[in-house]
Amino acid sequence: MVLPKAISRLIESFERLPGIGPKTAQRLTFYLLHVPQHELDQFADNLRDLKSETVTCSICFNVGEQDPCGICLSPQRERNIICVVEAPLDVLAIEKAGAYKGLYHVLHGAISPLNNIGPDELHIQELFPRLKKDEITEIILATNPNMEGETTAMYITDQIKRMNILNIKITRIARGLPTGSDLEYADEVSLIKSFEGRREY
Amino acid sequence: MVLPKAISRLIESFERLPGIGPKTAQRLTFYLLHVPQHELDQFADNLRDLKSETVTCSICFNVGEQDPCGICLSPQRERNIICVVEAPLDVLAIEKAGAYKGLYHVLHGAISPLNNIGPDELHIQELFPRLKKDEITEIILATNPNMEGETTAMYITDQIKRMNILNIKITRIARGLPTGSDLEYADEVSLIKSFEGRREY
Repeated sequence: MVLPKAISRLIESFERLPGIGPKTAQRLTFYLLHVPQHELDQFADNLRDLKSETVTCSICFNVGEQDPCGICLSPQRERNIICVVEAPLDVLAIEKAGAYKGLYHVLHGAISPLNNIGPDELHIQELFPRLKKDEITEIILATNPNMEGETTAMYITDQIKRMNILNIKITRIARGLPTGSDLEYADEVSLIKSFEGRREY
Repeated sequence: MVLPKAISRLIESFERLPGIGPKTAQRLTFYLLHVPQHELDQFADNLRDLKSETVTCSICFNVGEQDPCGICLSPQRERNIICVVEAPLDVLAIEKAGAYKGLYHVLHGAISPLNNIGPDELHIQELFPRLKKDEITEIILATNPNMEGETTAMYITDQIKRMNILNIKITRIARGLPTGSDLEYADEVSLIKSFEGRREY
């Protein structure tokens, strides 16, 4: 049986999304056949307008509705700390946790030689002029705790040291056991990091 | 942080899809921020045109590009067997397997009292006039091997018997152990069914 073109085209569109395989793409498409047309139209409009109604902040490179973004302009944020993250979704996660009130810098990726992503493919160079302003006292490296994230954090640290900006404290987010986890089932690296990073109680 | 409206709207659209949670919806939306606009436009077009470019066959209720559908009109299909399935995706799976060359009847669901779905919510009544034509010799009940599917298969069998259509063989797809599986790990019901349904070797 040849599928109707309208169906196979939508299946193909879904299949291009990360983590969506052929079976899921089929299931989503056939589900949408039962959805009212106005909902399909709205979904279509939301897709089409996604990029035209968002801008990248020219200071922190986070995604927002205006440039500079709300966080960069806000007088309520602590303006002496910059938290460096890989992606806008990381900003979202940190903001939801509510543990941080400073500024951000979004790299849009991490250094990954295997995937041909070097420092020049990321918004790393744009970070350093921000640090030279004397108001910044701390930079928190919150790239992911994996190989690419560690490489990126090390590269940024090296660059800052080379620039002789001595009055800035460089910190890295803590690694250890996740809250609610079981010591028995923890991976070795996390266990080692949780001992190395132990604090007085 | 308040997310840009264009982003939160698309996240909401994705969240309405079955099996897509808030985290996946976020991930897909932020992924699409990096996709070229023409691909987003195409995705949007495919969504918008999904329903307008497909029709439900008035004979078998499968989804197709024309009414009656290709299978119902095809002279190459065996026109004396009807396979009853719950959904168009089931037709797709059976056609891909290539084990069946007859006609179909798509119920668009299964009887499920818990979800308020009775026989009248499905295309069950439309099946019986098709059976009365004397050319049909077998009806294969290929509803899912779960409670709703079994209930539906039983209901259809009852109705056919009440109508005294005696010349039609009613069959049910075989239940047993899936190919490639391990007897040791099989669930009890499948194991019981595989013994009940054993065949001479």
